[in-house]
Amino acid sequence: MDLGQLTTPCALVDLERLERNVARFSERAHRLGVRLRPHVKTHKCVEAARLQVRNHFGGITVSTLAEARHFAAAGFEDMTWAVPIAPGHLEAAIDLHRRLERFNVLVDHDDTVTELERAASAQRVAPGVFLEVDCGGRRTGVRPESDRAVSLARRLHASPHVELRGVLTHAGHAYGCTDQLAVADVAAQERDVMVRFASNLEAAGVVVPEVSIGSTPTFAAVDALDGIGEVRPGNYVFFDVVQAAVGSCRLDDIALSVLAEVISVHPERSEVVLNTGALALSKDPGPVHLDPHCGYGVVCTVDDTRPLSGLRLVALTQEHGVVRGDPREAVDRVAVGDRLRVLPNHSCLTAAMFDRYHVVQSGSVVDEWRPVRGWS
Amino acid sequence: MDLGQLTTPCALVDLERLERNVARFSERAHRLGVRLRPHVKTHKCVEAARLQVRNHFGGITVSTLAEARHFAAAGFEDMTWAVPIAPGHLEAAIDLHRRLERFNVLVDHDDTVTELERAASAQRVAPGVFLEVDCGGRRTGVRPESDRAVSLARRLHASPHVELRGVLTHAGHAYGCTDQLAVADVAAQERDVMVRFASNLEAAGVVVPEVSIGSTPTFAAVDALDGIGEVRPGNYVFFDVVQAAVGSCRLDDIALSVLAEVISVHPERSEVVLNTGALALSKDPGPVHLDPHCGYGVVCTVDDTRPLSGLRLVALTQEHGVVRGDPREAVDRVAVGDRLRVLPNHSCLTAAMFDRYHVVQSGSVVDEWRPVRGWS
Repeated sequence: MDLGQLTTPCALVDLERLERNVARFSERAHRLGVRLRPHVKTHKCVEAARLQVRNHFGGITVSTLAEARHFAAAGFEDMTWAVPIAPGHLEAAIDLHRRLERFNVLVDHDDTVTELERAASAQRVAPGVFLEVDCGGRRTGVRPESDRAVSLARRLHASPHVELRGVLTHAGHAYGCTDQLAVADVAAQERDVMVRFASNLEAAGVVVPEVSIGSTPTFAAVDALDGIGEVRPGNYVFFDVVQAAVGSCRLDDIALSVLAEVISVHPERSEVVLNTGALALSKDPGPVHLDPHCGYGVVCTVDDTRPLSGLRLVALTQEHGVVRGDPREAVDRVAVGDRLRVLPNHSCLTAAMFDRYHVVQSGSVVDEWRPVRGWS
Repeated sequence: MDLGQLTTPCALVDLERLERNVARFSERAHRLGVRLRPHVKTHKCVEAARLQVRNHFGGITVSTLAEARHFAAAGFEDMTWAVPIAPGHLEAAIDLHRRLERFNVLVDHDDTVTELERAASAQRVAPGVFLEVDCGGRRTGVRPESDRAVSLARRLHASPHVELRGVLTHAGHAYGCTDQLAVADVAAQERDVMVRFASNLEAAGVVVPEVSIGSTPTFAAVDALDGIGEVRPGNYVFFDVVQAAVGSCRLDDIALSVLAEVISVHPERSEVVLNTGALALSKDPGPVHLDPHCGYGVVCTVDDTRPLSGLRLVALTQEHGVVRGDPREAVDRVAVGDRLRVLPNHSCLTAAMFDRYHVVQSGSVVDEWRPVRGWS
């Protein structure tokens, strides 16, 4: 099947680019001497996850219960649910702990640990837990310099109802960087904060079996990972416009695109309209900290996914995407019925809008991958 | 089943609010003497559409081929696909034209009409078409003052391969208004532009069977619709924070909310984190033209969906929502494991993230509605 037979909008995965991205990070993990526990939240499909774990130990990272169950059903036996466990999800997590070789959850608060201990002791199990650490992203995690961080680690270490698997962080603030040098600084911070914290814990008598870090930008930028056990990048499978802007990849590494059709042209105001709106692309604003006018994705040719200069996706409504030409003549290349591809600002959010990916190789659709959606 | 048994995040529909919203717009249509052809793109489920068309003629408006097929399968026989038809969708549209009593498509360009005539004549059918008019929103549609608008209408009127059903517009620019007075101006413009254009066409010998307008803000604000045949609001079923900001409704009319659980608390920086991120809420920025700090939704109590003052949803990542307290003590009311509801900025985009809605009445889950997703 060729691209012309697909109904727009739909999600395309460029298999060659994806395999190149996967190989690059796989080799990087081997070279830096860390275990790769890739995140699967970007694509949420078994086929891509199997490529990610090839030549690695097989562990993955998930972001939802639905992902955990989906990948468990596909034979994945070792996962970490890398969002602090909600007390309302404890029973489901314990069920997965029973079924799998390893199912680790995250905690960053005493109240969660109390609930987890209560649920685990009632079920006579001791689930694996990571203590989440805030290495600077200010989202979730304990502050590593706080007394509370050490006391919580001590409590987990001593508890008969949980098994402390280690400490874990995610340097989400790398996404706000302006260049690779800044990302490299965040990557060094992510590593150093965690190595120091683990060392403090060991000095306090807490055994830390694993030190887990990871984000796609920091893993792309870091030059050494001494003291780190595992990394958990995920976005790199597809990459996206934000990753290209912060230097994790080039635009021609981006493996996910949305196939669009031109439905309206307005030469008098130098605009054309695509049938890809906020539901196809998501409304992620993109790397606005680097370019306030970056728009909602990069408009490319359909055949070779080459960015079309002078065209910016300036507005999205539910099913419409408005593309503006600058210079004005830039839109003259585009006519009603033309097909284009749009590279997403944030591939995790764009991929989530589709119930299937059309896998493309050399201009042909060679496979269809079905991701899992929802939360439970 | 009560709300405590639901797994978070999930989408809740307040049935009482929804029925009140539906009744309000239904009565308004009767009072203003227009046919109501409600849009179903906000909820995309049969149950809500049936409530919308109760006491009306039964026609609906859809935004995707998937919606058209889903509602056709549920017995809806009269629909307008209110996005300019993509040439790649013509065959599917003609198939729906054959199967349904009425299936109208939109055009705004000669090239689309050429393709439509070619497909229709090959299939020996004459599908119903609306000519889309730009009444000021600058998205799709012909400019009504242009020669091209009149010549395109003439062409459709004269064509043996299509049946001109009328002219249609959507005043999307009403969403950018700052108050009800401004919305009322846009509503008057939407009506007047269309009445004048239809009159010009009639004078040019083009029969205009229908004049169709509609958006939730303009229909909520308009005081008279003389000369207008039908209206197509859709968002009003749920409403949302943007609609409340421009005055279409009050916050306590909003019928859609997302049930969230607190997964992390950070009193030292006056923040708590919910397990509702960009995938549960969408990344719609909300009414930033009225309040640049409005945040990603309104945080409410779980029982009576009452906004919690002093709490703002300041940041979203894929599965995390960061809520900040101002004053700082505002977060002290919230603990790990607490459940909250979030009213969405843009209910069309938030609803689209869920594969089901839990319908709630008097604190109990009384039904589950399944929307259609995707595009084909």
